[in-house]
Amino acid sequence: MSETFVAAPDGGPDGPGPLARLTARCREILGPDAVITDPVRLRTYECDGLTYHRATPGLVVLPESAEQIAAIVRACNEYGVPFVARGSGTGLSGGALPRSDGVLIVTSRMRRILSIDLASRRAVVEPGVTNLAITEAVRDRGFYYAPDPSSQQVCSIGGNVAENSGGAHCLKYGFTVNHVEACEIVTPDGDIVELDRMDAGYDLLGAFVGSEGTLGIATKITVRLSVTPEAVCTLLAAFPDVESGGRAVSAIIGAGVVPAAIEMMDALAIEAAEAAVACGYPPGAGAVLVVELDGPLAAVEQEYAQVERLCRENGAFELRVAKDADERAAIWKGRKSAFAAVGRISPAYIVQDGVVPRTALPGVLAAIDELSREYGIRVANVFHAGDGNLHPLVLFDDEEEGAGERAAEVSGRILDLCIRHGGSITGEHGVGVDKARYMTRMFSDQDLDTMQLVRCAFDPRNLSNPGKVFPTPRLCGEAPGVRKGVHPLVEAGKAELF
Amino acid sequence: MSETFVAAPDGGPDGPGPLARLTARCREILGPDAVITDPVRLRTYECDGLTYHRATPGLVVLPESAEQIAAIVRACNEYGVPFVARGSGTGLSGGALPRSDGVLIVTSRMRRILSIDLASRRAVVEPGVTNLAITEAVRDRGFYYAPDPSSQQVCSIGGNVAENSGGAHCLKYGFTVNHVEACEIVTPDGDIVELDRMDAGYDLLGAFVGSEGTLGIATKITVRLSVTPEAVCTLLAAFPDVESGGRAVSAIIGAGVVPAAIEMMDALAIEAAEAAVACGYPPGAGAVLVVELDGPLAAVEQEYAQVERLCRENGAFELRVAKDADERAAIWKGRKSAFAAVGRISPAYIVQDGVVPRTALPGVLAAIDELSREYGIRVANVFHAGDGNLHPLVLFDDEEEGAGERAAEVSGRILDLCIRHGGSITGEHGVGVDKARYMTRMFSDQDLDTMQLVRCAFDPRNLSNPGKVFPTPRLCGEAPGVRKGVHPLVEAGKAELF
Repeated sequence: MSETFVAAPDGGPDGPGPLARLTARCREILGPDAVITDPVRLRTYECDGLTYHRATPGLVVLPESAEQIAAIVRACNEYGVPFVARGSGTGLSGGALPRSDGVLIVTSRMRRILSIDLASRRAVVEPGVTNLAITEAVRDRGFYYAPDPSSQQVCSIGGNVAENSGGAHCLKYGFTVNHVEACEIVTPDGDIVELDRMDAGYDLLGAFVGSEGTLGIATKITVRLSVTPEAVCTLLAAFPDVESGGRAVSAIIGAGVVPAAIEMMDALAIEAAEAAVACGYPPGAGAVLVVELDGPLAAVEQEYAQVERLCRENGAFELRVAKDADERAAIWKGRKSAFAAVGRISPAYIVQDGVVPRTALPGVLAAIDELSREYGIRVANVFHAGDGNLHPLVLFDDEEEGAGERAAEVSGRILDLCIRHGGSITGEHGVGVDKARYMTRMFSDQDLDTMQLVRCAFDPRNLSNPGKVFPTPRLCGEAPGVRKGVHPLVEAGKAELF
Repeated sequence: MSETFVAAPDGGPDGPGPLARLTARCREILGPDAVITDPVRLRTYECDGLTYHRATPGLVVLPESAEQIAAIVRACNEYGVPFVARGSGTGLSGGALPRSDGVLIVTSRMRRILSIDLASRRAVVEPGVTNLAITEAVRDRGFYYAPDPSSQQVCSIGGNVAENSGGAHCLKYGFTVNHVEACEIVTPDGDIVELDRMDAGYDLLGAFVGSEGTLGIATKITVRLSVTPEAVCTLLAAFPDVESGGRAVSAIIGAGVVPAAIEMMDALAIEAAEAAVACGYPPGAGAVLVVELDGPLAAVEQEYAQVERLCRENGAFELRVAKDADERAAIWKGRKSAFAAVGRISPAYIVQDGVVPRTALPGVLAAIDELSREYGIRVANVFHAGDGNLHPLVLFDDEEEGAGERAAEVSGRILDLCIRHGGSITGEHGVGVDKARYMTRMFSDQDLDTMQLVRCAFDPRNLSNPGKVFPTPRLCGEAPGVRKGVHPLVEAGKAELF
């Protein structure tokens, strides 16, 4: 566990410094019951789903409107206090890790579904609404909200926007960014602004979604609703090993079939799932594929015939097809419980998140296997095989001296493998605080400078979720335009570097 | 016709000023035959597809690589000369309108397809490659590039990226932004940077695509290739009027069918198409719908039965289905020639481009009809009905005193209608120089400030396609952060406003 940020230098909410002044202002803006300063209650917000990093927030506030958030952010600017937004706290990269010298803005009181317009297939919701609540509100009328992170019962749509969350069905339907039509945001300097995909001008919505809280806070989100498909077909295919399963994935995609989901689990992940939820996957499988097809009935039937044939041709020794919703749930149960299940076979583990081109999967899996042997560390593989998004689970015993460090090293070397194969250090969990240090392995200084240009334009004082995404909190005066002397203020002799 | 920019103040490429120095430098960078200064040859670049705005460029260069473009852009920064990029010049909003005090960077010598990787369904191309050339390179192997602007035989992929171009099939398959996976760009200060959708960090690709040349120049584009659908079904349905056609569109989308395209033409557009290409649409039609379905054969059959029923239920009096590629081409011929065909029934016309929510279509069409009567100006309607993207053609006689002005007024009032109904001033043609003045009708000052923040971050000297998109060329020192005194340079007393 790492206590990432030190205690507030000004003595916290009761001290003499800026945090105390901000606390008083927040009480004026929000009323006293929406401002948390009690150390025990503050402690409950010390981490998100990535519990490795912890910090007790200096102050927690529970606003109920965009106007309140804007007022808090303007006060943060006035007093120079950093702010971090948090939805349900299910993120897996520490993106909502609080700061002990800052305020944590929690959106749990902003849970209203503001409007549903089925004719234009849109819903407008507040950021604290859970992902699943949107589907529940429209399911009876034949619609659903497509992105489905494993945490969808509790995770908030605001957090999904911040992290551009994915899920098993993102292979066919895309990520959060593909299902958000517009956002009202509070900018890092406290303005309320609309970003709309269909507007003229820049599509800043694309840059905002997935910016992990560094470009502002979403306060109202317009999501696209999808029509419930006529038919769904879920099948489980058991293979002797991950290589043959991988070949089946390539054959399916290569044939032009785009399943709603293709998930793969290796032997160790299957073992963990069996131990935890007795999912009853075929004994002796070295890998299983869960393939889900959806769409018009006629198309699903045709695709199913192709998928079955391609699985068998590539070595599947058993195929099961769900005949109803219960059987479908049974097939998914093993996959959906895989992360938590690993706790049954290992005292501790790290969930990694990386991406490789689909065609590089076999080579990368073999290399992970080699790493596992080299370090004597078990790695269970669970992944969204269709889009090359790996979730290796690096298992270790936290009682064992040095095991955590070795596991972290294996985990980091897996990311190096992803980069070397032309992939990415995150597929859907985000960079957060956890992977900021890997950004330099993936990007050139010029690439990072270009991103920082935007960050500095929105947030010149570095107050909006500082310490996340970027490896070095560059002073905005150091942005490339200024460094090279082309910034007009510098050129006109009206500014110097500092 | 409007000569938008005045002659170069320094006497042009042969004068004593910055343009002359840039010309000399460009000859060093590119060699003499890639630098055009002859006034007659310069004149051929005076406008893009929107011929209403014209300006002879100060200088035209024909680079062959990203490095050459970066060198030219750095020279522009050194001498303070604005630059405009141009692909094939088919844009319809004046986005590639040159500046007489600047250089036009034409990508017509960058026409190489650099790589095709069918396993990962990607192609990497230079910006001057035409849209259709990508499809032609992969068609035999069962793939195609999905976005299909009407100009696809000649328009360049670099221009498509700049304008986020659409086309008839964007209803189902999305716009250019949905089919571009990565771009190498030259930033406005001359760096070469990679933007990749799947990378960690900000998705700046989303903001870059559609930024109309104001955030830099794409020099290498990675596009997604799509699998040719197994079956395509094209049908033409004739309705007594646009209202009944519009109801059929709503019924089809409401039933959960997403056709590849649904195009509508009204009586005047049909009359023009008949006059020009004798497309043989059903006589007496007040409106026709062209509906194209594609996908697996079984699904297409099922959807066809639904579409046919819904068209008939909503008043279609004749339905034709294409039996082969020739008949398909015949159905599309009328629609694809509609813009040009209008020349047969009117000496001059303005092509408008606006968007309304699909559900607002009937009300907006009725209001356009009223405007048409009020001004005594004929308006032919051609539109991508499925996504509410209107292309009203405002007809006038340019020999008639004041007719052009009245047509421009009608055209502007149509945009007001779109905004009032919650739509946008452009669906796929961009803002360019033509619609910059409408931006303030659609956006608040704060919204525009937020976009300008990004523009100023990338292009603090306002050299990259200046005068486009934004209504007022704001000095970057006036960006909101600075105005409010929160910029660190200002706060530290190291910069003043100027």
